[in-house]
Amino acid sequence: MSLDSLDPEIAARLKRNPDGLVAAVAQQYDTGEVLMLAWMNDEALHRTLTTGRATYWSRSRGELWVKGDTSGHVQHVKSVALDCDGDAVLVKVDQVGAACHTGDHTCFDAGALAQGVR
Amino acid sequence: MSLDSLDPEIAARLKRNPDGLVAAVAQQYDTGEVLMLAWMNDEALHRTLTTGRATYWSRSRGELWVKGDTSGHVQHVKSVALDCDGDAVLVKVDQVGAACHTGDHTCFDAGALAQGVR
Repeated sequence: MSLDSLDPEIAARLKRNPDGLVAAVAQQYDTGEVLMLAWMNDEALHRTLTTGRATYWSRSRGELWVKGDTSGHVQHVKSVALDCDGDAVLVKVDQVGAACHTGDHTCFDAGALAQGVR
Repeated sequence: MSLDSLDPEIAARLKRNPDGLVAAVAQQYDTGEVLMLAWMNDEALHRTLTTGRATYWSRSRGELWVKGDTSGHVQHVKSVALDCDGDAVLVKVDQVGAACHTGDHTCFDAGALAQGVR
């Protein structure tokens, strides 16, 4: 069975932010690397669950964003899980090429932080 | 050197949401498991960077939340990285006990989603 929109049972479990979005953590399914944090509305989650391609809501462009449609850096979806309070999903994917628009493998590669003394 | 508040150079790189928060993905440093998604304000990030204990901003309680202070399920901080657009941090930790308040090891354990046919 393929539904035209997000399964109402799943939709009822979501706790969306005021913009109607849940956070989506993309993780490389085999290495465990956290690739990026993005956002999904109901339609993006529906497409992610039904097309096998990770799909987000681009807050900057205000449109659905099928990851890799312009860059070729597709994310093939392996699994999706909702967290305990319904406001975040963990999307395990197989990332083609770089996840980050900067060309880095992950969006966190360049951002190591350090401060003070532990 | 230990600073009293978040390093201004780090603070200048943050792109906070309207509530003054950045998303924080907590990941078990050795297994790669994504444990939870939470939120940090500047003070929570400062404490995470300087105390070695993952510290968040509890949106439900409206207060700083030193993970494990009530549950004992402490997160010892191994590294922190900011993402490319400054609105999310990846916090690699060593989790003591269960990360989730439900007793599950991660907040995503109980939430596998499936819909339609790929």
